[in-house]
Amino acid sequence: MPKDVIGSDAAALKSRLLEVRRRSEDWARALSAEDLCVQTMPDVSPGKWHLAHVTWFWECFLLQEACSAYEEFDKRFNYLFNSYYEAIGARHARPERGFLTRPSIDEIYAYRAHVDGALVDWLDRASKAELDRFTPVLLTGFAHEEQHQELFLTDIKHVLSKQSFPESAFGGPRHRVSPVQPAAPNPNWVECAGGRVRTGHEGGEFAFDNESPAHDVLLTPFALADRPVTNAEFLAFIEDGGYRKPEHWLSDGWAAVCAQARNHPYYWRRGEEGWFEHTLHGLEPLDPAAPVCHVDYYEASAFADWTGYRLPDEREWEFAAKAYDAEAGRWAQPGGRLHPVSISGDGPLHALYGEVWEWTRSSYAPYPGFKAAAGAIGEYNGKFMCGQYVLRGGSAVSPARHLRATYRNFFPPDAQWQMTGLRLARDV
Amino acid sequence: MPKDVIGSDAAALKSRLLEVRRRSEDWARALSAEDLCVQTMPDVSPGKWHLAHVTWFWECFLLQEACSAYEEFDKRFNYLFNSYYEAIGARHARPERGFLTRPSIDEIYAYRAHVDGALVDWLDRASKAELDRFTPVLLTGFAHEEQHQELFLTDIKHVLSKQSFPESAFGGPRHRVSPVQPAAPNPNWVECAGGRVRTGHEGGEFAFDNESPAHDVLLTPFALADRPVTNAEFLAFIEDGGYRKPEHWLSDGWAAVCAQARNHPYYWRRGEEGWFEHTLHGLEPLDPAAPVCHVDYYEASAFADWTGYRLPDEREWEFAAKAYDAEAGRWAQPGGRLHPVSISGDGPLHALYGEVWEWTRSSYAPYPGFKAAAGAIGEYNGKFMCGQYVLRGGSAVSPARHLRATYRNFFPPDAQWQMTGLRLARDV
Amino acid sequence: MPKDVIGSDAAALKSRLLEVRRRSEDWARALSAEDLCVQTMPDVSPGKWHLAHVTWFWECFLLQEACSAYEEFDKRFNYLFNSYYEAIGARHARPERGFLTRPSIDEIYAYRAHVDGALVDWLDRASKAELDRFTPVLLTGFAHEEQHQELFLTDIKHVLSKQSFPESAFGGPRHRVSPVQPAAPNPNWVECAGGRVRTGHEGGEFAFDNESPAHDVLLTPFALADRPVTNAEFLAFIEDGGYRKPEHWLSDGWAAVCAQARNHPYYWRRGEEGWFEHTLHGLEPLDPAAPVCHVDYYEASAFADWTGYRLPDEREWEFAAKAYDAEAGRWAQPGGRLHPVSISGDGPLHALYGEVWEWTRSSYAPYPGFKAAAGAIGEYNGKFMCGQYVLRGGSAVSPARHLRATYRNFFPPDAQWQMTGLRLARDV
Amino acid sequence: MPKDVIGSDAAALKSRLLEVRRRSEDWARALSAEDLCVQTMPDVSPGKWHLAHVTWFWECFLLQEACSAYEEFDKRFNYLFNSYYEAIGARHARPERGFLTRPSIDEIYAYRAHVDGALVDWLDRASKAELDRFTPVLLTGFAHEEQHQELFLTDIKHVLSKQSFPESAFGGPRHRVSPVQPAAPNPNWVECAGGRVRTGHEGGEFAFDNESPAHDVLLTPFALADRPVTNAEFLAFIEDGGYRKPEHWLSDGWAAVCAQARNHPYYWRRGEEGWFEHTLHGLEPLDPAAPVCHVDYYEASAFADWTGYRLPDEREWEFAAKAYDAEAGRWAQPGGRLHPVSISGDGPLHALYGEVWEWTRSSYAPYPGFKAAAGAIGEYNGKFMCGQYVLRGGSAVSPARHLRATYRNFFPPDAQWQMTGLRLARDV
Repeated sequence: MPKDVIGSDAAALKSRLLEVRRRSEDWARALSAEDLCVQTMPDVSPGKWHLAHVTWFWECFLLQEACSAYEEFDKRFNYLFNSYYEAIGARHARPERGFLTRPSIDEIYAYRAHVDGALVDWLDRASKAELDRFTPVLLTGFAHEEQHQELFLTDIKHVLSKQSFPESAFGGPRHRVSPVQPAAPNPNWVECAGGRVRTGHEGGEFAFDNESPAHDVLLTPFALADRPVTNAEFLAFIEDGGYRKPEHWLSDGWAAVCAQARNHPYYWRRGEEGWFEHTLHGLEPLDPAAPVCHVDYYEASAFADWTGYRLPDEREWEFAAKAYDAEAGRWAQPGGRLHPVSISGDGPLHALYGEVWEWTRSSYAPYPGFKAAAGAIGEYNGKFMCGQYVLRGGSAVSPARHLRATYRNFFPPDAQWQMTGLRLARDV
Repeated sequence: MPKDVIGSDAAALKSRLLEVRRRSEDWARALSAEDLCVQTMPDVSPGKWHLAHVTWFWECFLLQEACSAYEEFDKRFNYLFNSYYEAIGARHARPERGFLTRPSIDEIYAYRAHVDGALVDWLDRASKAELDRFTPVLLTGFAHEEQHQELFLTDIKHVLSKQSFPESAFGGPRHRVSPVQPAAPNPNWVECAGGRVRTGHEGGEFAFDNESPAHDVLLTPFALADRPVTNAEFLAFIEDGGYRKPEHWLSDGWAAVCAQARNHPYYWRRGEEGWFEHTLHGLEPLDPAAPVCHVDYYEASAFADWTGYRLPDEREWEFAAKAYDAEAGRWAQPGGRLHPVSISGDGPLHALYGEVWEWTRSSYAPYPGFKAAAGAIGEYNGKFMCGQYVLRGGSAVSPARHLRATYRNFFPPDAQWQMTGLRLARDV
Repeated sequence: MPKDVIGSDAAALKSRLLEVRRRSEDWARALSAEDLCVQTMPDVSPGKWHLAHVTWFWECFLLQEACSAYEEFDKRFNYLFNSYYEAIGARHARPERGFLTRPSIDEIYAYRAHVDGALVDWLDRASKAELDRFTPVLLTGFAHEEQHQELFLTDIKHVLSKQSFPESAFGGPRHRVSPVQPAAPNPNWVECAGGRVRTGHEGGEFAFDNESPAHDVLLTPFALADRPVTNAEFLAFIEDGGYRKPEHWLSDGWAAVCAQARNHPYYWRRGEEGWFEHTLHGLEPLDPAAPVCHVDYYEASAFADWTGYRLPDEREWEFAAKAYDAEAGRWAQPGGRLHPVSISGDGPLHALYGEVWEWTRSSYAPYPGFKAAAGAIGEYNGKFMCGQYVLRGGSAVSPARHLRATYRNFFPPDAQWQMTGLRLARDV
Repeated sequence: MPKDVIGSDAAALKSRLLEVRRRSEDWARALSAEDLCVQTMPDVSPGKWHLAHVTWFWECFLLQEACSAYEEFDKRFNYLFNSYYEAIGARHARPERGFLTRPSIDEIYAYRAHVDGALVDWLDRASKAELDRFTPVLLTGFAHEEQHQELFLTDIKHVLSKQSFPESAFGGPRHRVSPVQPAAPNPNWVECAGGRVRTGHEGGEFAFDNESPAHDVLLTPFALADRPVTNAEFLAFIEDGGYRKPEHWLSDGWAAVCAQARNHPYYWRRGEEGWFEHTLHGLEPLDPAAPVCHVDYYEASAFADWTGYRLPDEREWEFAAKAYDAEAGRWAQPGGRLHPVSISGDGPLHALYGEVWEWTRSSYAPYPGFKAAAGAIGEYNGKFMCGQYVLRGGSAVSPARHLRATYRNFFPPDAQWQMTGLRLARDV
């Protein structure tokens, strides 16, 4: 995982900018205007909206601040493409983003080109002092657009899941009628002594505000599984009646299971020939050796309870990830595989990054001493620190360069449409 | 209003078919793939879906019955584009029609061409006996596609109303900052003696099953206003506090007004320069002399109560329309005006057709002796005879040739997105 | 059925008043303070509320108008016990009537005694002119309290249906493990020639405003079944898969059946020994020869469609009821049976009154020339003339003296908790 | 705060049992059968249900385990009065507890007497070994019934808040038109050095499972306010537009404020003479010097943000409470005051117990090493460790002897009907 240590070098920043911006469009070009327009549940934003919102973010937080001559592409976009920044003003209702047939996708591409031109122009002409001042905004803008690239893919996955004809958008389907693969063997446990350890982000590289301040915590001895839970293991839970045994479930989770009559992970489909899984490559046979994904926190917690183990604390995860320097991982690449694969590896901890996000049992909360930044940008993370759980690692749809051991992703416990799995932990 | 007296003449049927089919696409070609894909409330179907559903209707009720060699374009479309025919089988959930990004609009056009080709082919080769047998299905298919042309326009109007930038799709906007127009004068009353009169459809022309059997009814003497209620008149109701006076409202209507904090018709917008109206030509200044439209049954009933008059009975309306042979009207034409215009005319009854549908106080019910047809086609009308009110006349988005004095349109009392207005009646 | 021809005779009015008022309390005394307090669905009002509301009606429409010296029992009751009279002012929210633990039932009885005293006092002292003026209000007050006696019983029936231990409140249960009774034979048909007939109320006796004006209508020849549909007949519909065959159902009804997974009438319960029915006497075995009850309009309509017949028009029902002078019937009596019984009789039409209300296919609408009265009392009926169907006859929980051939009861098509059944009709 | 150090002494246990059981009825005797029957929102249980549920708990977890000869009062109660123990079996739906008019309150009192008799009988006869074995169950039973005594009071408070006439049930109202009291001065700050400290329950006294295992944590230096936030302080927040400034609110909290148009704490009422508060003694003028109560987590968090300080971590609270041995407090007593009073005291930390529960910013989660007990009793706490926040301290409706520094109360962030307030904290 290359470090994000660009510094305020204009050429490097420009190169990174163009790469990030192009990548967003690479994903979109595989899809039709219709695919990019609809909204299949309130949590899902249309692909078109993601493309425009990240562009608005550059316009609002960089161009309008740094570049007095900048002319907005269309002033009305401030209303349409502000996501949740109360300090910026009123905005289009989130559950109605899918009503926006206008502007068209072609207008959004024009909007992107307009903003890209202005950004490059500014970088070409900015003084050293200007670059120094705005490099943090640029780095935030890269990270922000990368986050939305991942959301773009999970949201499009949801859109495609609602089609009657589950055809692929990204290559495939690859109906590998594989020979029955052996279930993954029991995990190996990597033991950690704990004690007083440092947690959180330190150093000069970019990180989000929620990863700071770094601080010491006390960890009791624990062990982490060397790999995520697999489909085969989760299937064993199902076959043992896991979805019918309230004793393993959190109260809210059991209520959801009963109300929705759930009995398998969100994108699993039972066919005549066994289990299949909706993927960005179409409907594929379930790979028993790959990490289970699209389980929500309740399912992750119930599965862990059924095994007799538990979910890790986020600080345990971070400590182990740092200890084993386990930063290699697969990354989302156009043309590549956008779904977890069978786990292998030769370090002590496998697949920390690049397959599935891993639920921890840590509620998303500020670190001691955390203060949100002043102004609109302070809304980026702080106001969401309630009702969500932290996930660590990174998934098969996470962009390269985006992740690190201190990264804190977070979703509500009932979120199913993100590429979420789990890794077991236990006390020692 | 030209009579639909084609008979089973192959050439005439083919000509009519091609005209009807082309007209559906004429409307659609003005819109983008995105405009044609989304669904902005459960009652609205995407434009794309209308184009496909009417095509499926031809396939299901004509080609598969009449033409043994016919090959379906895509068997899966039977699931996607069946609207509500239980006898045909399971179908895609109505509120999720807007999730269907696939098939694309281009595939729908290909589907249409496939079916058109098969229909023409069949007409070219059908024997006289075949033609005689299937002419009723053809006539129903024309009427069905014409109904959906009108729904297409009212549904697209809703989609466009949800855009932040209310730009026109059909020419316009024409922000005529007109000189203040005089309110329409009080209506003239056309008195009818009533008595024992014939109601319902008779004769050989096409009509829907719900217009039959013709039968005698007794009417007490009544009078009908010579024209629909205008915007100026409805504005006077508003300005007199009509939306704050429960004494004029039906109980369910008052509950809706309070729950939704309504105080004007659905597509009215108050601007700094006065009232505007969302139209298919964009946002236009309210024309005081044009018929009020997009009022629901509750608003129509409350307005009538406020005037001291009442809504007509559907049989009164039909009797008067027949008596005055008032069949001229404006019709929806590409390039024409798709919104009511100022009323004028020189017969005793004006604007019976071509401006707004007129709410009657008649609940939609079967005529004495009515029997739904056997099989799926029997679901066309009969099963909806509950919880709806009859509207008579026809609107500025109704297709030419589609209407007649006996035509019974029907919607629930809270429907606002259809082009619905009212004409006053009173006892004599 | 004794006619309500009291005239403005003080002694007769007082006697009637005391009888009506005592009857309300007779029903209530069988129940606990808790039974009389709770609200088990929004349509149900607590028993205590009914007792207070009818008392408020006397206070508001008679005592405060006729009796200047009258002092209200508690001014705050005007807010609590106004049902729906917008002209009177704000009132307690209907779905929260069950929150009212205060005033207690004992305070309500004291309120009743206070108002009864004032009414008797006024009757004892009223001049002839005063009596003449207020006799219509008194007659309305009697009818109003009698309507609420019936609602009291159907609402309490709903409350008792929600108890885990379905014990009787009104004597019983009488688990008559009867020998299998024969299904009722096919109905006999009573044919009517129709033609121009008079419908609606005429003459000096009391009737509600919605029964007027009397007017002529044209009826085509029809036949009415001599008796209501029985449980045995409805069971045959169920056993033939009636709840699984969309072809018999109105569209809204089929949607309700599917959404609620309904497959029998509301108060039927399937036990190991067969079908039982929740009654005001507890859970009883289903009597095959008794009229089916607690079917909603959708079920009544689907059943009729399944038989190949139809529901009657309300004017057909009235015409036949008048023709056959069929006014005898059973009436709700404390100590009596509050549930339909096996049908017998020797006139041509049986059980028109006293067993079940009979759904007609007539939407509830004003008669030609109907005008609601001025003021609050005008809200009694007129504003409900939308979205409801007319029922004719009267049920086993209807009070004696309350009914007549012209009486128009009305409920929405999905109402199940009233004692509603059906009688078949057909064209001749 | 007397320690709960009974040990397994039969006489002491019997004395405590009788005291606890009598206290539950002391509260109930102040209320009518109607007050004790209704349910005014899904979170509220009827008073009658609390009285029966705690009795069922004794029956299910003690008598049926310890006493083979015990005969259940009514086997059906197992279905009605099981709260949430999945391992015990099916149970009455929680939102329909208010439908239960039967059994009556008198039957519930008889049920209580039956169980009390059996408990006393068992205590009188139990061997030393039996006492040793079941003393933990007895202690849990005491604590459980005391928890429900507090819920009984907060639930009844909600029921009374829905009455149109807010009369008191527990003495009062005491409309003290007090001279304007000075706002409480700024809090004094009690500084704590933090470091490695012990948290959680240790020792032989009773505590709930969620207070264990005791473990060490690292605390950074912090300060706690010496007292809870007062009404005067919260009013200043309101008057500064606190409910209109999204920058202070968590995202979910701001959504709730907007959706519900909230602008003051739940039980505040604005009258012509200023602010009043709904209390268990009726409607009383707001006491500016008393702790604010019935604020939810969102309001507590927004208020803290507005001051520039923050909510405490639960471990900070516990550490400070232990350090200052601040165990004196007011307790709920029949005849006493069931509402927070003006704060005074002479230790460094005032009013830790006996006025309001204090929201912490700690999500409710298991302590390291926590394992839920096997069987039904394991459902007591563990399955609720999701979506809730910890509150510390105790309120004016908490029972004597029930609380301690390690006690962890918990509610969802939108809970308003509990007696919840806050105390400020800050980093040092």
